[in-house]
Amino acid sequence: MSARGRFISLEGGEGVGKSTQLDALRHALEGRGLQVVTTREPGGSPGAEAIRDLLLKGDEARWNPRAEALLFAAARSDHIQKTIVPALQQGQWVISDRFLDSSLAYQGEAGGLGIEAVRDLHRFGSLDFLPDRTLILTLEVGEAAARARVRDGSAGDRIGSRPPSYHAAVDAGFRTMAAKEPGRVRLVDAEGSPATVTARLLYALGDLLP
Amino acid sequence: MSARGRFISLEGGEGVGKSTQLDALRHALEGRGLQVVTTREPGGSPGAEAIRDLLLKGDEARWNPRAEALLFAAARSDHIQKTIVPALQQGQWVISDRFLDSSLAYQGEAGGLGIEAVRDLHRFGSLDFLPDRTLILTLEVGEAAARARVRDGSAGDRIGSRPPSYHAAVDAGFRTMAAKEPGRVRLVDAEGSPATVTARLLYALGDLLP
Repeated sequence: MSARGRFISLEGGEGVGKSTQLDALRHALEGRGLQVVTTREPGGSPGAEAIRDLLLKGDEARWNPRAEALLFAAARSDHIQKTIVPALQQGQWVISDRFLDSSLAYQGEAGGLGIEAVRDLHRFGSLDFLPDRTLILTLEVGEAAARARVRDGSAGDRIGSRPPSYHAAVDAGFRTMAAKEPGRVRLVDAEGSPATVTARLLYALGDLLP
Repeated sequence: MSARGRFISLEGGEGVGKSTQLDALRHALEGRGLQVVTTREPGGSPGAEAIRDLLLKGDEARWNPRAEALLFAAARSDHIQKTIVPALQQGQWVISDRFLDSSLAYQGEAGGLGIEAVRDLHRFGSLDFLPDRTLILTLEVGEAAARARVRDGSAGDRIGSRPPSYHAAVDAGFRTMAAKEPGRVRLVDAEGSPATVTARLLYALGDLLP
């Protein structure tokens, strides 16, 4: 019988290097003999991926911000039940590319719905199920925007192309969560080489590693 | 410039004659010179109909009850914003085949999530937007089951085939809402001929009619 695995969420604004670090972190944990499942939000289970399709297709005004937050909470409830909890019970480690704190930062803080109101949806939908550790990659907002432009071209995507004030509010939301829940949430500096950043992520997981 | 229309929701358990009465009520209101739009839940707007597809397809265990309640609330938020409010602003009357009180009775009371918890989702998603009048068709539970069997055949559908205790809990949920909000919510006896029941519905709208 294996011990329960650990659940790590990886968060951060656009252009902080999240995708690169997700892969690097998986390899580093596998190198320590752990079985690792990577997943993502919105999505990560068949039902949640169907909701993701609803969220991402269509134009900007397709969903009002409140309907959108409810859809994210519904997808997360399904993702936890169908994918995350079963993997943890089998002793696997789970790393999710985005999770609750993205909703708190994007919809709650930057979208103006309020962090507590969005957290209440998670309390209802998932009984406040939380990661063992949330790692938030942080980068000075101008630098993140420059990286996102290199990645996406000058146009950027639907979220990447929002004004600097929006991205600054997302950043403030993430920092609020780190201040509120220092045990769970850690800010990790995303400046420097990818290997340097991965080393910082592993350091921030130090107390959880076998 | 026309006055704002009225928003009526028509509710009730399986087999109470809701579809028949929806049509009859529309004709009766049109006969008084009102412009009437009929709609339904879940659904009633393109986004909400897409959520309806997610809710109704797949097997019984496709969604856990909390994810399901969040999806209903998301669909309702879209339905109100895109369909109901614009029609009311144009002076049309809107009759919806099911609305909030079905969620309160089915997911809140019969599904065990709690009426207040489900109402909180509506407060979040739609700022507690309510019908001007909610008409709940009521029938003794055994009689409703017999009518539903005639309509659907002996097998019944996914909800119709649930045990009598479930339908009794739905009925109790509707009665709770009528007791809590007597100004908005009226119980209407669904016994007797369709014309008799329609007359009772119009009577329960008497103070709103021009």
